[in-house]
Amino acid sequence: MSDDLKDLSPVQLRHLIRSGQYTDNTSGLAPGYTQANLVILPKSLAYDFLLFTQRNPKPCPVLEVSDAGSKKLTEMATDIDLANDFPKYRIYEKGELIQEVTSIDDYWRDDLVSFIIGCSFSFESELLAAGIEVRNITENVNVPMYDTNIPLKSAGEFHGNMVVSMRPIPQNQVVQAVKVTNAMPKVHGAPIQIGDPEYIGIKDLNDPDYGDAVTIKDDEVPVFWPCGVTPQNVIMQTKPDFVITHSPGHMLVTDVKNTELKYM
Amino acid sequence: MSDDLKDLSPVQLRHLIRSGQYTDNTSGLAPGYTQANLVILPKSLAYDFLLFTQRNPKPCPVLEVSDAGSKKLTEMATDIDLANDFPKYRIYEKGELIQEVTSIDDYWRDDLVSFIIGCSFSFESELLAAGIEVRNITENVNVPMYDTNIPLKSAGEFHGNMVVSMRPIPQNQVVQAVKVTNAMPKVHGAPIQIGDPEYIGIKDLNDPDYGDAVTIKDDEVPVFWPCGVTPQNVIMQTKPDFVITHSPGHMLVTDVKNTELKYM
Repeated sequence: MSDDLKDLSPVQLRHLIRSGQYTDNTSGLAPGYTQANLVILPKSLAYDFLLFTQRNPKPCPVLEVSDAGSKKLTEMATDIDLANDFPKYRIYEKGELIQEVTSIDDYWRDDLVSFIIGCSFSFESELLAAGIEVRNITENVNVPMYDTNIPLKSAGEFHGNMVVSMRPIPQNQVVQAVKVTNAMPKVHGAPIQIGDPEYIGIKDLNDPDYGDAVTIKDDEVPVFWPCGVTPQNVIMQTKPDFVITHSPGHMLVTDVKNTELKYM
Repeated sequence: MSDDLKDLSPVQLRHLIRSGQYTDNTSGLAPGYTQANLVILPKSLAYDFLLFTQRNPKPCPVLEVSDAGSKKLTEMATDIDLANDFPKYRIYEKGELIQEVTSIDDYWRDDLVSFIIGCSFSFESELLAAGIEVRNITENVNVPMYDTNIPLKSAGEFHGNMVVSMRPIPQNQVVQAVKVTNAMPKVHGAPIQIGDPEYIGIKDLNDPDYGDAVTIKDDEVPVFWPCGVTPQNVIMQTKPDFVITHSPGHMLVTDVKNTELKYM
């Protein structure tokens, strides 16, 4: 990406994205600022989903919920248009992806509620700051993610198992990685499992269910964190009539710094 | 209270309360175990209230939400009957207290949702464990609570200002008190203000809006925490058709230890 882009502030980026001039993924943009996932549901499903996130805050860390019908936020960003400030959106009907678009103005309804959900990008930046390599960043691939046997607490129709992301961590940095991420409960918090993939139902680390496999070196331990793919996964399994999400990697760039998330 | 009572486990206490043999306040019972506040609302109000707590987690730390119509919990206690396991309940209609009862079986409806909300009892026990005197406990009175000018984030009809509780802390223990309570976000977390009541709109510390005034010694600083009276206050201001709460001090004794709350 051009150096110009990297120099843009979150609000400048949102303006560029809003105008349709930038439609690519947001990886590496506005370093230090929180990027967030999106789930938009009709209000009829919003209570059960909000309750599901309340019961499962580790995989589903809600940063902010819009008012029904509103394209605005107040906490994570002002000067925001939720219908245009993600570079790309996915429209689902009855669980089927029907369209990928750069604006959802044409799909907007007064009963839509937007859930802004924390993302591991935030804690990866803190891991790096603590001197811990993040392999998927080094190898420039998507983090490997796996279905597990860890049951979630259900709410209404929403139920299922947790999806986890995995990062190999050198044996002598595992405790530090736990401490860094434990301080960030708004973005998944501490790992859910350290070193034993089979214990949580993962058979082959080289065959992730989502994302890409990464190299695990001899002195490294696979460490598993609750993953933000979980809520989308759970929603899609219920095949709701209508859902909008962001496209993978095409996130909202917010005005809140990753470090600020610790104190919200 | 008799020593016998103090020796009872949480589940033994709940059985005693359920049977109607104990209807008094729960202060000092099952030391070390989390006690919790109750708000029961019809499902029609539950989304806005859950959203209100999501937006205002410091004064409104939700520990668990029941399924609609269910008298059970799964996290904070098993072997529980939400309609009988609080020693005393208050029934409100259109914001007016109409009845105080020891069982709400006669008022139960299939659309009722129970919100189990964290309480400062939990962090007071941790403050004591850290060697910090809690004046309201020493003086055997209710903690002093004050209306403030701190605006809450609104959700649907629910809006208002934060209520805070105040504990005088010796100057040389203030930082420790912040650290102890900061580690307990499920029960209000760190203070919201230290040392300047006027800054948050409190005119006279000797004239609390709820609870009782306590002695503040010369070397002590008034420290203010978000208070669990806030959600009840906010609900009552909207004069909803039907609400049930616990009676003040007559809490749910849960199976979860105060220290465990830090890791949930």
